[in-house]
Amino acid sequence: MAHTNDEILQVFESALSRLQTPEEPELLYAPIIYSMSGGGKRLRPVLLLLTVDAFGGSVDRAMPAAMAVELFHNFTLLHDDIMDNAAMRRGKPSVYAKWGGNVAILSGDAMLITAYKYLADADADKLPRVMQLFNNMALEVCEGQQYDMDFEQKEEVSVEDYIQMIERKTSALLSGSALIGATLAGASEDDNRKIYRFATELGLAFQLQDDMLDSYGDEALGKKIGGDILEGKQTYLMVQALNRANAEEREALRTTHLRKELTDAEKIATVKALYDKLDVKHAAEQQIELRFERALSVLDTLSIAGERTLHLAEFARNLMGRKR
Amino acid sequence: MAHTNDEILQVFESALSRLQTPEEPELLYAPIIYSMSGGGKRLRPVLLLLTVDAFGGSVDRAMPAAMAVELFHNFTLLHDDIMDNAAMRRGKPSVYAKWGGNVAILSGDAMLITAYKYLADADADKLPRVMQLFNNMALEVCEGQQYDMDFEQKEEVSVEDYIQMIERKTSALLSGSALIGATLAGASEDDNRKIYRFATELGLAFQLQDDMLDSYGDEALGKKIGGDILEGKQTYLMVQALNRANAEEREALRTTHLRKELTDAEKIATVKALYDKLDVKHAAEQQIELRFERALSVLDTLSIAGERTLHLAEFARNLMGRKR
Repeated sequence: MAHTNDEILQVFESALSRLQTPEEPELLYAPIIYSMSGGGKRLRPVLLLLTVDAFGGSVDRAMPAAMAVELFHNFTLLHDDIMDNAAMRRGKPSVYAKWGGNVAILSGDAMLITAYKYLADADADKLPRVMQLFNNMALEVCEGQQYDMDFEQKEEVSVEDYIQMIERKTSALLSGSALIGATLAGASEDDNRKIYRFATELGLAFQLQDDMLDSYGDEALGKKIGGDILEGKQTYLMVQALNRANAEEREALRTTHLRKELTDAEKIATVKALYDKLDVKHAAEQQIELRFERALSVLDTLSIAGERTLHLAEFARNLMGRKR
Repeated sequence: MAHTNDEILQVFESALSRLQTPEEPELLYAPIIYSMSGGGKRLRPVLLLLTVDAFGGSVDRAMPAAMAVELFHNFTLLHDDIMDNAAMRRGKPSVYAKWGGNVAILSGDAMLITAYKYLADADADKLPRVMQLFNNMALEVCEGQQYDMDFEQKEEVSVEDYIQMIERKTSALLSGSALIGATLAGASEDDNRKIYRFATELGLAFQLQDDMLDSYGDEALGKKIGGDILEGKQTYLMVQALNRANAEEREALRTTHLRKELTDAEKIATVKALYDKLDVKHAAEQQIELRFERALSVLDTLSIAGERTLHLAEFARNLMGRKR
């Protein structure tokens, strides 16, 4: 019987708790331990290990690759926080805020190298292919971050460009993790393609939902509403709204967050009123459903479809916060 | 007959000229091409390939690893320039100065990943070991950079601590390159240890000479004198001088570069007068000779000693700017 999501998470957390770095130089290594023990849902290693398990591979032997993707993910957050000037991360000061930019740059570099240190312990006969998948994934994530920064300076971002950006920035790390898992378990080329597709679509659904919750989330659940709006960020809602707006509405969408005479609440209300008028919430919900359904239906086409893919479907539902 | 230094450099430059990255996103990839085409002596890939050649391995098959160490070296310069706030690199604006900090961070990350992309093409049967050597080398370089930054804040740095810092910051990349070369060529464990020692000692001699030339170089040869003194940097001369100084001299060594009433030339003259009084130039010269002689004598103990190591000795002499 394959392992449940909770069991896999437990095995991974236990391996993670044994993560060790040298003690010195402290400013290089302490931020790595600080970042990795800062919580987080461990989505990428869990997906990697669930995939290994579903295809009948060894969860234990896949642990170095699982550590590598989690280290890589946290490395990207560490460097992103410098670029975004972000003071907080998971309710604690970011490495950047706590230790400064130079420490954040260099300890981030050491963290990326440490990810490869773990990856080097993957099964030797599969290492060349796993390295290739990992490197492609890692470059895609960098590309996504660059496009995201590019979009901040751009007047016009098409919906297609936006989807391609989040496919790199968010999906690539999930689809790469699933693909590395399938590769380690020796899955067929056909299954590899399909599991990659599953995680790509799921990642898109997840990011689009995240975009939507920023404007339409439940404040009762502790979700702070409107952060993206106040930052003037390009999100699916904003891109789609700009796409549908007339000249006057477009101007309002672009400039409301800059209007100093408005309170934050007024800015958010103004932009959300435009979102409602342009019916973009509905468009986002449709996209999310479409992507999520595609992800789940790909699972049914895997050669192992049935009991072995139940936990992958569970992972998908958990990620989206759904019961079924 | 083994290849000369010039032949190896030519083969490497030819491979390097075929370096390709995706076109988009431009701000991610253009800085990589800009950095890699900015010149430099290609010391590390040349040493790697000379070592492969000396041990009878295939220079062609070692090319991906040679590209990887050169990419890694240039990645470290790119990120160091952010940390050091350096506007120029090899006579051109640094990536940091040209494109800003965020582009420098992210394109540097992509450059490090690109190094691993090349490394993944190393001979598959040697890849796990080559990855391990590369990762250890890369972490040592980060450690060296962190210690170097730590030393700027420290009152007391011992000569031993200083040597250990430059062993990481400068030697590690040379010794790692030589060791990867020997490993790819299938050299014995004993030869591996010795070639590592050769490059370590050579790297120390090189860095100590670089430290000395900052104060005692030949301005006629275009060397700008006293940069380290004006920055108040810890160098071998400074560390050794502080070590030998009385309380009054120590105070002068520590504070001269901060004295606003002095011109740059006066600051340099004041510190150099103390160096002369404390006889640290002589101490540095002795260390350089000692390390350089050790490096050369290790070559004679290799199992391939003789004609096959001539080009490695030539590399060592070239590096130190010596005819013999």
